[in-house]
Amino acid sequence: MSGASLDFFYEFASPYSYLAAMRIAAVAEGAGVAVRWRPFLLGPIFQAQGYVDSPFNTLPLKRAHMWRDMERLTRIAHLPPLTRPEPFPAHALLAARVAAWLDDASRPAFSRAVFFAEFAQGRDISDRETVRQVLAGLGHFCDDIIADAEAPANKERLRAETEAAKSLGVFGAPSFVTADGELFWGNDRLEMALDHARALRDGAAPRASA
Amino acid sequence: MSGASLDFFYEFASPYSYLAAMRIAAVAEGAGVAVRWRPFLLGPIFQAQGYVDSPFNTLPLKRAHMWRDMERLTRIAHLPPLTRPEPFPAHALLAARVAAWLDDASRPAFSRAVFFAEFAQGRDISDRETVRQVLAGLGHFCDDIIADAEAPANKERLRAETEAAKSLGVFGAPSFVTADGELFWGNDRLEMALDHARALRDGAAPRASA
Repeated sequence: MSGASLDFFYEFASPYSYLAAMRIAAVAEGAGVAVRWRPFLLGPIFQAQGYVDSPFNTLPLKRAHMWRDMERLTRIAHLPPLTRPEPFPAHALLAARVAAWLDDASRPAFSRAVFFAEFAQGRDISDRETVRQVLAGLGHFCDDIIADAEAPANKERLRAETEAAKSLGVFGAPSFVTADGELFWGNDRLEMALDHARALRDGAAPRASA
Repeated sequence: MSGASLDFFYEFASPYSYLAAMRIAAVAEGAGVAVRWRPFLLGPIFQAQGYVDSPFNTLPLKRAHMWRDMERLTRIAHLPPLTRPEPFPAHALLAARVAAWLDDASRPAFSRAVFFAEFAQGRDISDRETVRQVLAGLGHFCDDIIADAEAPANKERLRAETEAAKSLGVFGAPSFVTADGELFWGNDRLEMALDHARALRDGAAPRASA
């Protein structure tokens, strides 16, 4: 019998992905669930749903609530005061490509550092120099990695991850998917996803009714 | 010093309003927070945001996740297996008018019974007979109440509640608003809203940063 596992789909421009990224390692370890970090791009998925922009931009009331909610949640999580990326959503392509290129052992720390730069330090992650500094701060050979991340094979890797997310029904970020294909959307659903991953391991997961 | 209080804005067609309605009385009592039940109509608020239909209808992936999520959450809450209203969202105008007409003491029980009929019993709440039966089951003079609920003064009362919700920034349901105007959207935010209501009473609420 293999252990419990969970796929964590995240997008660097997504505020709630930031919250999930900062806590998932500790919470999943406590639950005994292995996490696979899977960066993807929300843009193509939003486009496929007919969005012309993030709903946080097209719906001003939803946007206003999201920032207040994020301020409250970062305070509760004892994270630094929230900074709001400008423009929003941030253009996260390079960061996502680097995250896709890194191996499973290095990807979480890099991803947390990108999110932290963006939402806690107010840095512009669309700026190549920010990505370089985040990599360098983690002891990586930043220029080599960026070159590899922008090579065709790795661009294709990120595209494939986005396609994988889409084929699993992912429509927003963060999303969590268990081995049986059960989809959980949103930072608020992390605990439910972990419970489901454990129930699945133990042969006790409820089946889908439809 | 007055006590802690919370305004609970709900829409009978909203699945997550059902979840909030079934638990808010117990959770708020435990927290020592008085709840004001405020039914409103989401339709005019969605229209003002440019929606042509519920996002759950225009976004099939979001809709699929919502029903799965609701099935999981009703199971966790030990509610009966979820039934899906057809058509969705239900046409909840009459039920909302009756809820607006009832006094504060009678509104919660009626509202819970409407939600239960809709999401646990698979009944059509747009059907006048369903609303009659729900009222009768609670010992009300159903025909008199429905006549009063459809009188111009009460139609205006519900319209005013919807306008009040809009002026507080409500853009979805359920929503919770504390005395300082802080808005919390979604059943998932009930506990945070209660915490804020108590902090406000105790003079310890964090202020908005923007």
